[in-house]
Amino acid sequence: MKAEIITIGDEILIGQIVDTNSAWLAERLNAIGVRVAQISSIQDDRGHIIDALNEAKERADIILITGGLGPTKDDITKETLGDYFQSNFVFNEDVYANIERIFKPRDIPVLSVNKEQAKVPDNCEVMINKLGTAPAMWFEKDGKVFVSMPGIPFEMKGLILDSIIPKIKDKYNTQAIFHKTVLTQGIGEAKLAEKIEVWRKSLTLYDIKLAFLPSLNSVRLRLSSYGGARSEQKVVEDKVAELKELIPDFVFGYDNQTLEEVVGKELNKKKQTVSTAESCTGGNIAGRLTKISGSSDYFIGSVVSYSDEVKKVMLDVSADDIEKHGAVSREVVEQMAIGVKNKLKTDYSVATSGIAGPKGGTDKKPVGTMWVAVASPTEVVSKMFRFGDERSRNVERTVITALNLLRKQIIKEEL
Amino acid sequence: MKAEIITIGDEILIGQIVDTNSAWLAERLNAIGVRVAQISSIQDDRGHIIDALNEAKERADIILITGGLGPTKDDITKETLGDYFQSNFVFNEDVYANIERIFKPRDIPVLSVNKEQAKVPDNCEVMINKLGTAPAMWFEKDGKVFVSMPGIPFEMKGLILDSIIPKIKDKYNTQAIFHKTVLTQGIGEAKLAEKIEVWRKSLTLYDIKLAFLPSLNSVRLRLSSYGGARSEQKVVEDKVAELKELIPDFVFGYDNQTLEEVVGKELNKKKQTVSTAESCTGGNIAGRLTKISGSSDYFIGSVVSYSDEVKKVMLDVSADDIEKHGAVSREVVEQMAIGVKNKLKTDYSVATSGIAGPKGGTDKKPVGTMWVAVASPTEVVSKMFRFGDERSRNVERTVITALNLLRKQIIKEEL
Repeated sequence: MKAEIITIGDEILIGQIVDTNSAWLAERLNAIGVRVAQISSIQDDRGHIIDALNEAKERADIILITGGLGPTKDDITKETLGDYFQSNFVFNEDVYANIERIFKPRDIPVLSVNKEQAKVPDNCEVMINKLGTAPAMWFEKDGKVFVSMPGIPFEMKGLILDSIIPKIKDKYNTQAIFHKTVLTQGIGEAKLAEKIEVWRKSLTLYDIKLAFLPSLNSVRLRLSSYGGARSEQKVVEDKVAELKELIPDFVFGYDNQTLEEVVGKELNKKKQTVSTAESCTGGNIAGRLTKISGSSDYFIGSVVSYSDEVKKVMLDVSADDIEKHGAVSREVVEQMAIGVKNKLKTDYSVATSGIAGPKGGTDKKPVGTMWVAVASPTEVVSKMFRFGDERSRNVERTVITALNLLRKQIIKEEL
Repeated sequence: MKAEIITIGDEILIGQIVDTNSAWLAERLNAIGVRVAQISSIQDDRGHIIDALNEAKERADIILITGGLGPTKDDITKETLGDYFQSNFVFNEDVYANIERIFKPRDIPVLSVNKEQAKVPDNCEVMINKLGTAPAMWFEKDGKVFVSMPGIPFEMKGLILDSIIPKIKDKYNTQAIFHKTVLTQGIGEAKLAEKIEVWRKSLTLYDIKLAFLPSLNSVRLRLSSYGGARSEQKVVEDKVAELKELIPDFVFGYDNQTLEEVVGKELNKKKQTVSTAESCTGGNIAGRLTKISGSSDYFIGSVVSYSDEVKKVMLDVSADDIEKHGAVSREVVEQMAIGVKNKLKTDYSVATSGIAGPKGGTDKKPVGTMWVAVASPTEVVSKMFRFGDERSRNVERTVITALNLLRKQIIKEEL
C-alpha cells in the first residue's frame, strides 16, 4: 500500500514556512503500514495541481492533499478538484451546521465567504472538520483514493486521526508496523550508543530495527518490528524492559510521553504539589507543567524572578548572597527554591538561574551557565550545567533538565 | 527563472525528520529571483530518482538535489546521476585532499568507503564541500542545470552560499522577487477579507499577488511582486502603508516580527517595564516575553497564580471577590493585574484568568472563557474572550490576545 502527500501553497515554496505536516502525516501512515512514496509541495496553481495529481496516481494508491481550502480567493484547491473529478457543487447542510457551530460562541455572523465553504463536490465523501470550517473530501477514481484536507496543522491532524486513518484501515487490509520508542534524558547520543552496544546487537536476532533520534538534550530510541504479529510485539516489549534495566537513570518514559506528563503522574500518585521559581527559564517550566490537563491538582504556582529585586522581595533571597555570589550561583538558586516552596506551601519546588545569552556572559560564568535546584520535603539539591551559546536552546535545555531532576528527586524520595 | 528542489532519503518519507532544508533553500533562491515551482521528497531508489529528474526538468530550469551522497550503501544518488548523465567516474585529487583534511584532526584513518567519495562523474563541475566529505556536483543537460548536494543541513548551506548561489547569479541574469508580509491580530480571515476587498482588488493593477496566511488567532497577509525593480518595491510598500491605514487596530508588525518583539521595542523606546500575573496561561506570557534577548531591560517578573491561595497571598486579590465572582471574573483578573504591578513595581502588567479546559467549565463559564486585563500607568482595562474547547490552543490564543492588548495599551498611552 503506497501513499503520496501533496501540499499546496506558495508559503512553503517561498520558504516562509517549514512543512511539518508531511512528516507528521508520514509517521501516522507508516504506523498503519502505508508507505509514503513521495511528498510534493506545489503552487496554488490549477495546472500544477492537476499535473501533480496525475503524476501521483501513477505511483501511489492513496493521494493525500493538504492546503488551499480557505475561504479566500487565493485558495483554489476545491474548485480545481471539482474540475478534475468532474463534480457538480452542492450545498451541504452538515458542513454548514458545523460552520455555524464554530461561529456561534464567538458571537459573529457567518460571512458569505464562509457560507461558500459549505458548497462541496457531489461525488466525494465529505468529512466534517470539528476544528475548522473547511471539511475534508474523499474522492475515488480509477481505483485510487484522493483525500483533500485543510493545511492548518491542528485541523489536518484532527481529520486524519478521527476520520481518514480509520477509513484507510477499514478500506485496505493494512499490516501494522509496531514501533516502541524509549525516551532518555541526561546522556548524549554517542555515549548512549556505547553503553547499549551489546543490547543493540541482540536486536538483529529478532529482526528489530533501532533508530537513534536525538533532539535537544534528550535522545529517543525507536524500536521497529515490521511483521506486526502479536508475538513480535511481545519481543519488542521484552527488549525495551531489558534496556530500561540497563540504563535506569536515563529512561524517563515511552512513546509520546512528555517529562511534564511523567512528573504530573508521580505527583498525582502521591497527592503532592510543586511550584517553580524561574529566572533564566522565564516561566517556561510553569508553562510546560500546566500543559497537562488537571495540572491544577499539583501545580500551585510560580514566581518568575527576572530581576534581582523580585528575587529578594518575592522569594526572600538574601541581598548579601546576590551581592557576594551573583544571581547565577548555587547559593541564590537554592534560596529561590526554598523561598518559593515556603511561600507557596508546596512539597516540591524547582528553581533556575542562568545566563541564557547572547549577552551577559563573563569569563567565569560564560553564556550557557545554568544553575538548577530542586527542593523536596527532605532536602535541597542543586547542579550547574554548561550549555551552548544560543538563547532559546539554552532555555529549552534548562527546562528539560530541571523537569528531569524534579522527576528523579520525586522517585528518590519514594525509596 | 524556475527551480525545483528534490530531496532524496527515506527518513523524510517515514516521518522521522522534518525537511527544513527546502524552506531554507527556497528562501535563498527567492531572494535572488529564482522561483521554486515544486519541492519533492523521494525515496533512495534508482527508478524513482530518475523519474523525479525527468519530471522536474519539464517544469524548471534549475534542479537542486539534496541527499543520498553519504559513504554507506543506502546512498545511491551519485551512482544514479552517473547513469542519468552517462558519466564515467574519475578520481578527483581535490576532493580526496579535502577528505584527508577533514579526517586528520580526528586522528582516524581515511576509510575505503570515504575514499570512494573522491570518485566523481567526469562530466560535471565538482564543488568542494569544506564542511564534509561529499562534494556538490553541477551538471548541465538540454539547457537545464542539475546540482547535487549532501543533505546534511550545514554542509548543504555552506555549499549553497559559497558556490551554488554565486554560480546561479553568474549564469542567469536573475531578477529579485520582493515579498512583504503584514501581520494582523484580533480579526478572522473572512472578516479581514471583507474589510480589505477594495484594496485587494487594487493590487491586481500593480501585478501584486496577495496571500492570506491564517494561524492561531492571527492572520498574515503576504504581498508579492515578481518584477523585482526598485519602483515595484516602492509600490508594494505604498500598498502596505494603505493597508495599515485601513485596519490600524489589527496590524501589529511586518515580516518575521513577533508580538513579543514589537512589545519589547515599544517598552524599550519608553524605558518602561512590564510584569505578568498568570493563571490559565501558566507562565507562557512570561516565557514569550523572555524569548527576546535583552528582555531583562523591561521584563521584571511574573507571578503564576494557579491556585486561589497564591492569588490572595502573592497578588493581594480579595478573598471575598474570589468567593463572590469566582477566580475567572473581571474583578479577580483586574486585581491580579494591579497586584503584580504594585508588588513588582512595573509600569505595565498583564493578567489572565480563564478556563483552559478540557475540564472545569460550567454553563455560565464554559471551557474557553478567558479574562485578560492590562494595567497601565493610567488605567486598568479588561476584556472577556470565548475561545474553543482545546486546552493548548486556548492557552496560545490567550497569550497572543494578551500580548496584543498590552501592545495596544502602550500605544494608546502615547497619544
